[in-house]
Amino acid sequence: MDAMGGDKGPSAVVEGCAVSAAKNPEIAFILHGDETTLRALVAKHPALVSITRIHHSPGVVRMDDKPAQVMRSGRETSMWSALTSVREGEAMAAVSCGNTGALMAVAMLRLRKLHGVHRPAIACLWPSRGESGFNTMLDVGADIRADEESLLQYALMGAAYYRNAFNAPCPRVGLLNVGTEDHKGRAEIKEAARLIAEAAEIGRYQFVGFVEGTDLASAHVDVIVTDGFTGNIALKTGEGTARLVSDALREELSANLLSKLGALAALGPLKRLRKRMDPRRMNGGVFLGLNGTVVKSHGSADATGVSAAIKLAFTLAKSGFQERMAERLASVADAVEERALAQGKANGKTAPDTDEVEEGQP
Amino acid sequence: MDAMGGDKGPSAVVEGCAVSAAKNPEIAFILHGDETTLRALVAKHPALVSITRIHHSPGVVRMDDKPAQVMRSGRETSMWSALTSVREGEAMAAVSCGNTGALMAVAMLRLRKLHGVHRPAIACLWPSRGESGFNTMLDVGADIRADEESLLQYALMGAAYYRNAFNAPCPRVGLLNVGTEDHKGRAEIKEAARLIAEAAEIGRYQFVGFVEGTDLASAHVDVIVTDGFTGNIALKTGEGTARLVSDALREELSANLLSKLGALAALGPLKRLRKRMDPRRMNGGVFLGLNGTVVKSHGSADATGVSAAIKLAFTLAKSGFQERMAERLASVADAVEERALAQGKANGKTAPDTDEVEEGQP
Repeated sequence: MDAMGGDKGPSAVVEGCAVSAAKNPEIAFILHGDETTLRALVAKHPALVSITRIHHSPGVVRMDDKPAQVMRSGRETSMWSALTSVREGEAMAAVSCGNTGALMAVAMLRLRKLHGVHRPAIACLWPSRGESGFNTMLDVGADIRADEESLLQYALMGAAYYRNAFNAPCPRVGLLNVGTEDHKGRAEIKEAARLIAEAAEIGRYQFVGFVEGTDLASAHVDVIVTDGFTGNIALKTGEGTARLVSDALREELSANLLSKLGALAALGPLKRLRKRMDPRRMNGGVFLGLNGTVVKSHGSADATGVSAAIKLAFTLAKSGFQERMAERLASVADAVEERALAQGKANGKTAPDTDEVEEGQP
Repeated sequence: MDAMGGDKGPSAVVEGCAVSAAKNPEIAFILHGDETTLRALVAKHPALVSITRIHHSPGVVRMDDKPAQVMRSGRETSMWSALTSVREGEAMAAVSCGNTGALMAVAMLRLRKLHGVHRPAIACLWPSRGESGFNTMLDVGADIRADEESLLQYALMGAAYYRNAFNAPCPRVGLLNVGTEDHKGRAEIKEAARLIAEAAEIGRYQFVGFVEGTDLASAHVDVIVTDGFTGNIALKTGEGTARLVSDALREELSANLLSKLGALAALGPLKRLRKRMDPRRMNGGVFLGLNGTVVKSHGSADATGVSAAIKLAFTLAKSGFQERMAERLASVADAVEERALAQGKANGKTAPDTDEVEEGQP
């Protein structure tokens, strides 16, 4: 746990650990941050004392620190230290409420990309009308551009993530576009659709084709693939709209005495609605494509939100899906390369020795 | 009125006309579509009879017709006919519930782009916490790509639209991005921010810089500029999220007898909420950058929705803002070109005769 990064400070992080510890007897924590502060906070939760180790790190990454600056001079920070404990095998996963850009930069530096991954991605959770109650969308901000091969990798990584997080043997993958017809969208998206459809068997997912912004909560898709620019804007638009509607509801329910009485009468259903739409349940952006599990919690997360991020990190770390995902990525990369070479040959272009290519096959 | 295009058929369109006619004594209609059908529908609304002319057109553009196909062989359709009546000055604006792609294609063919416009844009309305209750976002789907100069034109066109639709002398323009810091986003967006800031005086708007998905309903911005791919996905994500929350609210309020009693008690505030968030109030995508006012109503619009689109078309057509907007676009285009030439000269590149450029100045 990067215990120092969030807007609410280390107390929310330590409380989140306590919430998780109460539910999960298998869990243990390493808290990275200011030792004196953390020791005092842990002492308030007797259940934490025996399962928590504190790793002193004096520095804190601030929300407005530039990633490059943290990469150069962030060695003493709690964020750096938390990622190092994953790198060295002390921790099975890292959770941070800190600056996303810095966390991705330091994670890439300390954990390195998985073999065959072009660019890591960040996958978020989204409330869904489907069985699990959640869809996932990626990338939501690791990279502002994605070519067709990156989108293919996001499909593979997203499917692996969803399969393991929600115990879904064959997740349904959709590609975000401005319409569902084949002729719609940018060239790289049409090409990505072809690649993602072809890799469905190796990736153990079902490709449902193009999906639209209205489908983000759909019961007909589990994994929504898009570039990090579009994904980030869609995620924040959804968050903003949900907040707009719930603020309007709150305003109307407290507009006058009669409204307030009505709200009191409808307390049960309104409470259930709040729980169902609670953004804290959706907390946890998973970094995919690294040698190690890293979960980014929302900066403003409270104990409930931090605990949701911890649960996600625990489930993923325990599933050990990273290694299997890496194998599938390599298989697909080989298949894509092989086809490119075969096509090059068919077109009369020079291709390297075929033996070498066949060796690379799964 | 393209009376035949919507999902609900001509009856919703004619009823929408009747709703508008009851509120607006200055309005009159030309209905394009099947004469027999329309005559029977108009006869049901005595107030419409004297202010409505029917223009028979036998064909209908279907939702799945390809734009290119409609451009080739759509002369007999109600959509084509409605746009022709704007082209020929019979109508001051056209409203259609039909296929967006086909409507834009035929509108470009029949009305042509305004002088100096690279690409027309579609501007949508969005519920806002601000004074007018609405923000506008563009482009939401006319074009899937936009370079920095197109984004600048969207800023100018969006500001002109907002000023006239909401009587706002100096609209606040924001550029949609993945963060508000200067270093965030793609290269063309950073360049667009520079161009939009520079053109603020000529365009009579205030540039508030980068905005995020969470700001779409913000009270601190009126016009949100983005490319048509991102804008379309943001719009549909927002629509989908609002529907998700309201469906969940409805489900919880009808979960059991107690919930239903609660809902009954809270009927007043819930009704006000529904009215406030009613997507029909937001109906009407305005096509900007053409020689003529065209409003695209949602395909599934009912009478209330159609009437909102008619009101928008009426307000804009009456304001005559198109001509003033064209002048501003030309001024800015000249200023941009002049600067490019001056920079070319400074860099020792060849530039055309300077006299010619100065002549082009406002």
